[in-house]
Amino acid sequence: MTTRVYLLDMGTLMLDMSFVTWNHGQGIEYRFPVFAVYVDTGDKKVLLDTGFEKDWVERNLPFEKPEQSEEQTIVAQLASIGVRPEEIDIVVNSHLHFDHCSGNRYFPGAQFIMSKTELRHSYVPDPWERLGYDKNLVDIPGAQFTLLPPLHGYEYEVVPGVSLIETPGHSEGHYSFVVRPTGEAPMIFPVDVAYNAHNLGSKVLMGLHSDPRELLESMVKIENLAQKIGGRIFFSHDPESYKGYKKAPEFYGE
Amino acid sequence: MTTRVYLLDMGTLMLDMSFVTWNHGQGIEYRFPVFAVYVDTGDKKVLLDTGFEKDWVERNLPFEKPEQSEEQTIVAQLASIGVRPEEIDIVVNSHLHFDHCSGNRYFPGAQFIMSKTELRHSYVPDPWERLGYDKNLVDIPGAQFTLLPPLHGYEYEVVPGVSLIETPGHSEGHYSFVVRPTGEAPMIFPVDVAYNAHNLGSKVLMGLHSDPRELLESMVKIENLAQKIGGRIFFSHDPESYKGYKKAPEFYGE
Repeated sequence: MTTRVYLLDMGTLMLDMSFVTWNHGQGIEYRFPVFAVYVDTGDKKVLLDTGFEKDWVERNLPFEKPEQSEEQTIVAQLASIGVRPEEIDIVVNSHLHFDHCSGNRYFPGAQFIMSKTELRHSYVPDPWERLGYDKNLVDIPGAQFTLLPPLHGYEYEVVPGVSLIETPGHSEGHYSFVVRPTGEAPMIFPVDVAYNAHNLGSKVLMGLHSDPRELLESMVKIENLAQKIGGRIFFSHDPESYKGYKKAPEFYGE
Repeated sequence: MTTRVYLLDMGTLMLDMSFVTWNHGQGIEYRFPVFAVYVDTGDKKVLLDTGFEKDWVERNLPFEKPEQSEEQTIVAQLASIGVRPEEIDIVVNSHLHFDHCSGNRYFPGAQFIMSKTELRHSYVPDPWERLGYDKNLVDIPGAQFTLLPPLHGYEYEVVPGVSLIETPGHSEGHYSFVVRPTGEAPMIFPVDVAYNAHNLGSKVLMGLHSDPRELLESMVKIENLAQKIGGRIFFSHDPESYKGYKKAPEFYGE
């Protein structure tokens, strides 16, 4: 069996640069990509995050000026590689901000894996994080949920070849992913530990965070992990780096 | 202005004794009182907890065999001292187990003060605490909520003469109350830090807890506080001690 990894392009959003570089860049527009990750291990079909929905953003956060074509929805992206929503076995959410979980509702038959802490924040957000969460995006009636308790540094294997690590700071129950495509270097998805290479390389925090000190620690953890396992880091919201990534239907692996 | 304190009798519930004395007393029935506390400071009308509702218990936890007459509902108890629900200014919940918040819905115009951590557990309980919580009991549409963050030992004044302290262990966001009736010793309500005098005196934990070590620390805190301020402890679910308490329409204070 081989593990293949697909980046599912979900379009773009816009934020003021001060959201990207804390307290700096006010008035500069930063348009950035959003993507989900689909992993087929041969045995299991796993989705890491489910992106945003244009309607939801236009209704709730119109200043983020979403751009998403009909080919850039989660269902259309999966269709482009011949996968139907009901085939997805497992959905893991890195965290529950809208641009990482809005497609959850298309997978009511999947097993959802997420942080219990994160789900609690989705239901009862702190004042500064209200805009990012919407419990209606994750409250999928009848779905099967695996709510993970604190892992205290333990790397949790989702399925062989796909694991998650706790990287709090952007949000309190935030996860990053490590995926091992067959025949290639491990892929590290810090998700929102660092929107872009500048955040990580210069330890420039993003403007929105649950704990700046924890976020810095998570950055160091991600950088060191890449060194330790020889992994390649794929940034979540980096227009420059994104140009160099393969997107579905292209894939990583054999 | 004088502060008067009324204990509002809400009837009784039943549990196996092993819920009261951890791992001991299986097969012995323990029927215990439930009460809410009403404080009139002259300036503000404050309710500390709102008890259980017989219907809810019969539907959800019939093994607790609730007994509650029509005179023992929260609204009837307040009526017995001439207070209408809409006169209540503030409702504070010690925690969000059903026997401490089921009457919240009668006070949609009040300001609700509760622990944010506790509310998160009500929405997303841990497996062993599912039976105690029901988010529908606390999700009062349109009501005004003050969700307190962790207080790290700080005694939070609700209004002059009424304060709360963090006493986790029974539940993660649990509070105890200190009330100062005019002309009398301070009244300490540990709430579910100790159901009864035996729990506290012998440091016998109850069977249901979020963290046994935290619960023990909270017991020590309550005992020492009583010594420090010369307070009298009123136990939450102690049939023996309860006999000696004044109940509404009697009151503490002048």
